Amino acid sequence: MAAAGVLVVSRLAAASAFASLPSLLRPQLSCSWTPAQRAAALHGSAPRPAARVALVLSGCGVYDGTEIHEASAILVHLSRGGAEVQIFAPDIPQMHVIDHSKGQPSESETRNVLTESARIARGKIADLATLTASNHDAAIFPGGFGAAKNLSTFAVDGKDCRVNKDVERVLREFHQAGKPIGLCCIAPVLAAKVLRGVEVTVGHDQEEGGKWPYAGTADAIKALGAKHCVKGVTEAHVDQKNKVVTTPAFMCETALHHIHDGIGAMVKKVLELAGK
Amino acid sequence: MAAAGVLVVSRLAAASAFASLPSLLRPQLSCSWTPAQRAAALHGSAPRPAARVALVLSGCGVYDGTEIHEASAILVHLSRGGAEVQIFAPDIPQMHVIDHSKGQPSESETRNVLTESARIARGKIADLATLTASNHDAAIFPGGFGAAKNLSTFAVDGKDCRVNKDVERVLREFHQAGKPIGLCCIAPVLAAKVLRGVEVTVGHDQEEGGKWPYAGTADAIKALGAKHCVKGVTEAHVDQKNKVVTTPAFMCETALHHIHDGIGAMVKKVLELAGK
Repeated sequence: MAAAGVLVVSRLAAASAFASLPSLLRPQLSCSWTPAQRAAALHGSAPRPAARVALVLSGCGVYDGTEIHEASAILVHLSRGGAEVQIFAPDIPQMHVIDHSKGQPSESETRNVLTESARIARGKIADLATLTASNHDAAIFPGGFGAAKNLSTFAVDGKDCRVNKDVERVLREFHQAGKPIGLCCIAPVLAAKVLRGVEVTVGHDQEEGGKWPYAGTADAIKALGAKHCVKGVTEAHVDQKNKVVTTPAFMCETALHHIHDGIGAMVKKVLELAGK
Repeated sequence: MAAAGVLVVSRLAAASAFASLPSLLRPQLSCSWTPAQRAAALHGSAPRPAARVALVLSGCGVYDGTEIHEASAILVHLSRGGAEVQIFAPDIPQMHVIDHSKGQPSESETRNVLTESARIARGKIADLATLTASNHDAAIFPGGFGAAKNLSTFAVDGKDCRVNKDVERVLREFHQAGKPIGLCCIAPVLAAKVLRGVEVTVGHDQEEGGKWPYAGTADAIKALGAKHCVKGVTEAHVDQKNKVVTTPAFMCETALHHIHDGIGAMVKKVLELAGK
């Protein structure tokens, strides 16, 4: 049962896993499209250059890394928009590891942000240190506590937080190059900290009976020197001047497809601002 | 900065994480809708009972667990269809841990299938041992190598594989109760092994220049005593007699949104067969 194209692997091959298997046996997220695929995705319109989008992850799992469904929604919408995606994460230890089944830290465990992010990226990922704005038309940051624990210290230090140096560099590079930046959920705090006076949304600024459990974050956004703009979960806020696009995502307690659609609105605006 | 509703947590709170925080601070995947939310999702039609769907995971990450984007797509489409979802996984060790950034096993590491699956479930997950068909209208199994490594031994043993006893029990219970079962990617091998003579698809049965890198799996399906039906990535195959619905998903090397749409077709058919 070792024929190419069959999923069955020997115990040895299963143990040494996929490094030794032909690349055909390792389908990736389809981040690099052929012109024909792009044309098809664009419903038969004439081929045009795809937007080259960098996605920056912070681990894999809402409580200590990237919010999985936000990252997946971003990738689905970028795929539908015909973008070429490259995925990055910092090669640093996570702040901590949360056992998501218990909501408690797994004290004896350490995990690496890049290694865990590779689960979302299906292995196709690069060190954030290698990301430069010159190679991309836009950058997008999903949320999850990883943005507030691994990409910054916001979860602990609030308005006095520090931002990871490569995250800060990347945000400044894209901003200075006039290239759009998309962020969702709690990730807008990164832009609020680095890009003085930027407009972002983290949703509503009142809890409204539990619909917006993190509503107080709007005040933290203001304390960081940014402007908070109230938006619904299916909407994106566009700071036209700074080319920063944000959507509340899981800041809202709602059905998943509304979050998926709000992220779609954010991705669409990012691609429009990228001119692709 | 300890006000409720603000994402900022003290270092102590961050360390003890979310168990101690008010439930308001832990938004979940919205698996349980209010009647109003369901009505809205159904575009204003009269409220009707939501389908109660069990989602069975096998870890978190394509090479040693559940394929993340398949699970997320299933949840998005179930949400849009107004289903009530409960998520399950077996409380067993993973076959092994793959470092997804290297495509190699992480030799010194062990992880638990339920604990890792909780990352996709945002903490809201139960032991597969507690899943019974009597409490649900349908069951869905996403793919990823976890289905072939943790839910069965197919990755190692092929047609001679064993299926996890709770997975086998759950498949038989839903089948005997006439309740639909959805599976995608490599997960159809579970139905092929347990439900003799079932019709499933894992996509095309020829590689076609790399578009179907796992095409040989179709032969393994036949060797298991099932019938393989060729389908495209945006299609679902429905075995009306057995109420088993399958779609190729990541068995196809294509753009992510096509996989997302194929999973949408599968979820729609499952909900139709559930009569909801």
